[in-house]
Amino acid sequence: MRTNMLLLACIFPFVMMAQQLKSPKGNFELNFQIENGVPTYQLLMNGKTIVDKSSLGFDLKDIPDFLDGFELKDDERTSFDETWQPVWGETKSIRNNYNELIVKLEQASTDRFLNIHFRLFDDGLGFRYEFPQQPNLNHFVITEEKTQFKLMGDHKTFWIPGDYDTQEYDYTTSKLSEISGLMDKAITPNASQTSFSKTGVQTALLMKTADSIYINIHEAALVEYACMHLEIDETNYILESHLTPDAIGNKGYMQAPRTTPWRTVIASKNAGDILLSNITLNLNEPTAYEDTSWIQPVKYVGVWWEMITGKSSWAYTDIPSVKLGETDFSKTTPNGRHAANTEHVKMYIDFAAEHGFDQVLVEGWNEGWEDWFGKSKDFVFDFLTPYPDFDVEGLRNYAKSKNVKLMMHHETSGSIRNYERFMDKAYQFMVDNNYNSVKSGYVGDIIPRGEYHYGQWAVNHYQYAIEKAAEYKVMVNAHEAVRPTGLSRTYPNLIGNESARGTEYEAFGGSNPDHTTIIPFTRLVGGPMDYTPGIFEPDVSKYNPNNKSWVNTTIARQLALYVTMYSPLQMAADLPETYNQHLDAFQFIKDVALDWDTSLVLEAEPGDFITYARKAKGTNNWFVGRTNDEEPRNSSISFDFLDADKTYIATIYGDTKDAHYKENPKAYEIKKYRVNHKSKLSQYCAPGGGYAISIFEVTDKSQLKGLKRL
Amino acid sequence: MRTNMLLLACIFPFVMMAQQLKSPKGNFELNFQIENGVPTYQLLMNGKTIVDKSSLGFDLKDIPDFLDGFELKDDERTSFDETWQPVWGETKSIRNNYNELIVKLEQASTDRFLNIHFRLFDDGLGFRYEFPQQPNLNHFVITEEKTQFKLMGDHKTFWIPGDYDTQEYDYTTSKLSEISGLMDKAITPNASQTSFSKTGVQTALLMKTADSIYINIHEAALVEYACMHLEIDETNYILESHLTPDAIGNKGYMQAPRTTPWRTVIASKNAGDILLSNITLNLNEPTAYEDTSWIQPVKYVGVWWEMITGKSSWAYTDIPSVKLGETDFSKTTPNGRHAANTEHVKMYIDFAAEHGFDQVLVEGWNEGWEDWFGKSKDFVFDFLTPYPDFDVEGLRNYAKSKNVKLMMHHETSGSIRNYERFMDKAYQFMVDNNYNSVKSGYVGDIIPRGEYHYGQWAVNHYQYAIEKAAEYKVMVNAHEAVRPTGLSRTYPNLIGNESARGTEYEAFGGSNPDHTTIIPFTRLVGGPMDYTPGIFEPDVSKYNPNNKSWVNTTIARQLALYVTMYSPLQMAADLPETYNQHLDAFQFIKDVALDWDTSLVLEAEPGDFITYARKAKGTNNWFVGRTNDEEPRNSSISFDFLDADKTYIATIYGDTKDAHYKENPKAYEIKKYRVNHKSKLSQYCAPGGGYAISIFEVTDKSQLKGLKRL
Repeated sequence: MRTNMLLLACIFPFVMMAQQLKSPKGNFELNFQIENGVPTYQLLMNGKTIVDKSSLGFDLKDIPDFLDGFELKDDERTSFDETWQPVWGETKSIRNNYNELIVKLEQASTDRFLNIHFRLFDDGLGFRYEFPQQPNLNHFVITEEKTQFKLMGDHKTFWIPGDYDTQEYDYTTSKLSEISGLMDKAITPNASQTSFSKTGVQTALLMKTADSIYINIHEAALVEYACMHLEIDETNYILESHLTPDAIGNKGYMQAPRTTPWRTVIASKNAGDILLSNITLNLNEPTAYEDTSWIQPVKYVGVWWEMITGKSSWAYTDIPSVKLGETDFSKTTPNGRHAANTEHVKMYIDFAAEHGFDQVLVEGWNEGWEDWFGKSKDFVFDFLTPYPDFDVEGLRNYAKSKNVKLMMHHETSGSIRNYERFMDKAYQFMVDNNYNSVKSGYVGDIIPRGEYHYGQWAVNHYQYAIEKAAEYKVMVNAHEAVRPTGLSRTYPNLIGNESARGTEYEAFGGSNPDHTTIIPFTRLVGGPMDYTPGIFEPDVSKYNPNNKSWVNTTIARQLALYVTMYSPLQMAADLPETYNQHLDAFQFIKDVALDWDTSLVLEAEPGDFITYARKAKGTNNWFVGRTNDEEPRNSSISFDFLDADKTYIATIYGDTKDAHYKENPKAYEIKKYRVNHKSKLSQYCAPGGGYAISIFEVTDKSQLKGLKRL
Repeated sequence: MRTNMLLLACIFPFVMMAQQLKSPKGNFELNFQIENGVPTYQLLMNGKTIVDKSSLGFDLKDIPDFLDGFELKDDERTSFDETWQPVWGETKSIRNNYNELIVKLEQASTDRFLNIHFRLFDDGLGFRYEFPQQPNLNHFVITEEKTQFKLMGDHKTFWIPGDYDTQEYDYTTSKLSEISGLMDKAITPNASQTSFSKTGVQTALLMKTADSIYINIHEAALVEYACMHLEIDETNYILESHLTPDAIGNKGYMQAPRTTPWRTVIASKNAGDILLSNITLNLNEPTAYEDTSWIQPVKYVGVWWEMITGKSSWAYTDIPSVKLGETDFSKTTPNGRHAANTEHVKMYIDFAAEHGFDQVLVEGWNEGWEDWFGKSKDFVFDFLTPYPDFDVEGLRNYAKSKNVKLMMHHETSGSIRNYERFMDKAYQFMVDNNYNSVKSGYVGDIIPRGEYHYGQWAVNHYQYAIEKAAEYKVMVNAHEAVRPTGLSRTYPNLIGNESARGTEYEAFGGSNPDHTTIIPFTRLVGGPMDYTPGIFEPDVSKYNPNNKSWVNTTIARQLALYVTMYSPLQMAADLPETYNQHLDAFQFIKDVALDWDTSLVLEAEPGDFITYARKAKGTNNWFVGRTNDEEPRNSSISFDFLDADKTYIATIYGDTKDAHYKENPKAYEIKKYRVNHKSKLSQYCAPGGGYAISIFEVTDKSQLKGLKRL
């Protein structure tokens, strides 16, 4: 092949030449072609074009661009098939099977080289650029990546506004061509936000074609590079990469040899295939750590929702200004609303211990919350000094005695230099006090000023924090950081991220009822989210009369989210006093697993509903979750995923017939059945509702007494 | 007084009211006045106006400015007289004697408060702003400080271009009104430079009035604030503060209660008083460290000038690109010009030991020099990993055996985050390997990009580095950092700075012959400079045939600089092989002290000449140094500073009659005399020349045999 190509290149140097690549099963086809010197690619699925001929390249700073004048010099083809075991995940093993084409291009006029790697899986495509070692391109600056995705029509799109600082938006569902007209409405207030265009959207972007093909565009392995957005040409349906800039407008500082992150296109006629695709993980490197025994899934409660709702405060006092190391909090007047106090935390520890939770998150334990936000305050927290009413040592011992761990909280307020200065001490403080996981936060504008949450500078920091944490055997759950791109394969101590609109927004005015039917197709494609479900009291004013927010789901759906929003880190976010009023429903949260052997999508339509079934790791127990949009719907599922030779007890936590996310959200009913692999269920899902099912293998037949068959 | 003022304010709220302050001796007078709501001050010396009525205030971001609408609410007056001992210095004790006026202003329309502190010394003025704790001004952003200095005429000015990134310029001497016309010529190339205006200049700024009053304007105690430049109104002779911005154009992030750095005006009819003023040190806080025993002056040689001239290289190889931790230098081809190799460094250690030097600086010892500059490379050095030919342990032991210390070198390439990430490890590495001082460097543009060398962000970093170094008992000599402002009083481990055009420029094309007759009046007012004198081979092409630079001084003047450029850190910068050819002249460098009981200025005229005499600390020995501009001159000094009852031997290292910095720079002659307090000297100084004298007390009369009286 190579010889022929070179021969052709010699004889017909300007002839268009296509390189074709097929996926292992042959259902996907990738065509690479240089057209008038411009590298292009095209992606087909089962003979149908998914991405039409689209150009590839870069704008470079102060040197000729990498856009045209290219010739194909060589190509390489390999096949790869391997099955690997994630430290934690939706399945106990993951097959990584692809055919790869590497095209090696020369820009003759500049005597420079660019390689492009295409990996074609049976569920989609990953491709990335490689800048090989070469004499004429060494250190350079990318002013824009010019990767295009030319779509075949005005697809239905599930999108959030492009933004350099936040992904915490509700999804808007519209045609591609309607996005600019809806942008203003889509941009809702955030603690830090930088919109850049009326036609800019974020990845992972989900689309549905007129002939019902689902397409997801995202990236994998975002390391030392700026986060990619997509700019939409609403007329020609071309999406083009738009990288997050730095303070002076540059987008990437590069040194050859280097590769970019992977750009991914997952496609299927079946929506569930998008949810189950492992392309993002497979395009990341294997685990970087030799020992991963210290990394475990975490189920937790926390001193958190009471502050989010405004019932309590993070701050110990109401003074307007804090100078760490100078302000003597022992001489200040407490505001009486500080939740992170020793007695209150002990109550949470007791609750966690009683119900089998691993950890208790405590926010607001450390000095500085009085003036932490919106002040561009550089030295805002030290991550070491507790408020006077938080007894670090006492709580360490108390938690230990209850076999519960406390979860650390490091809010940085976006002040990255300050966090890095304290990082070693802060992680050591955790080790010394028996913490093994940290929720970090980047609320507000980034310091250094002018940098953005999603630029190369900040991406470098998040990565630094993860790897530094690993030195201390600390697991990281980073909020407001860049959205994940499968890096948890390589760095499995990254057990969670926020980077999307989480449950907290239910207390900030509420989220769309269909939010949780979309987010697994978009944000979760990159990795797990610390969504913090489990709200049992939808009326936020019950906690804080001044907060008129309403949690737009039924209680049954809150339970479902523990299954539909996959994460090795799951919070029961509501208050212990509320759970104590609903211990029957709370039982599901106690029971549900965090790590899985198998995951199945039983039903799925983005924006409408998702039903997952998952088998708990190392057991024969299954959990089913169904999230439903604002329409009342019926869910029909079969239990044929169960072992044929086993009997199970299924406990169904469902909406009652009169349940409704606004009118009657607490209306759930719990039913128990005897089930086997022939059982079928038709279950009503209320508007904004859903259901959850625990399915436990029966080993002692007496447990079945009195139970009906389903 | 207070009562009267308030009474007056009530009755005549818009009357102009002046507050007068006199210096302890009464020679200086400060008048503060609110005029139409604008705070103003005026400075007089012996009844003559030095600074005419000038306004004070700030532009603030997003809130009303602090420029007018002020009323005087209160004032406070104190007197202070104290004598303190610096850890090292030009004199063994320093008197700090001033009268202070604090005016307390209210901006009634915003219900906000601003205090201004004036300290009037017998040699000038210091004033600063205080933002007291208050309800309506807490965290805020300064967009510009609007401090004016209205001068009385078109003074002769010794200036360098205002620049956010460098002070490494030759001085231009002109009238204030001529600056804009000369600016383009004054801006010579630098590794990182950001000019901001045709009329912007740097501090410390020296001026001379038509009636021969010398005026120096600078700042003291620059901490957590941006470096101040001065914008010149060439018509009205008004200088106005211009702070260095950050990446988004803001100039200061503030939190009350806070004070700004001091703004200083030193003035005298006698040029020497400017040189000997201690206002800058006195306006800094006392030493922050309890134990300062680990801080000692340092005389050193170094593997440095051979790289500066281009004879040798910092880099071990000529590869175009390094990835730290990936590039295996043991498998690369050495370029054969790498000076920081074990054998070569041992030679320097031998030389240092033989001649009584404390330390040997070694630059280029660590991996990364192949692509360290101009690449905006974030991870550019790790400060830990030596090149294969530099044996850290072997050299540590060898140096120890010779009772010499190695001096560490941390070039950051401006990549501040990277340096901070490695700082603890890098300082610990120093401790482990017996280094106690570090030359740090910030060559090139700052990373984070968009920040400047002199902005608040970088100023914060330099301070962090100094205080962190102190934790490891490390002394810091920071190059390319912000120019000093007397902080070495508080942090005496800051034993040196560059922050001006040093000797290296003699190998980059040369500096003006009058450079060293100006810089003690300007840059050195803030603190010592690691000027690196002692070049004995003025023809740089002798070291590197491709470098046609010429060192614009005679050898005799090179010796003088050890006295005229006060520093507790002094380098003998030339090569051992060169010193070995001039061991008679080299003897002065070996003899000269680094720390002093007393310093006197015997002759001084900026731009023309300076002659210092200094008494070595704890001895009866004196050293005299004279630097001369490009004119041949005669220096006439008296030795009346000597003890009347003692006899001394003076060794005079002078220019010969035919010496000339261009034509005959090596023409020196050394003469020995018997001297006492009645001796007088008339000494010829060649163009670009000068002289140095060592004066040792004679304790054994036999030493006087054969010596003539002077």
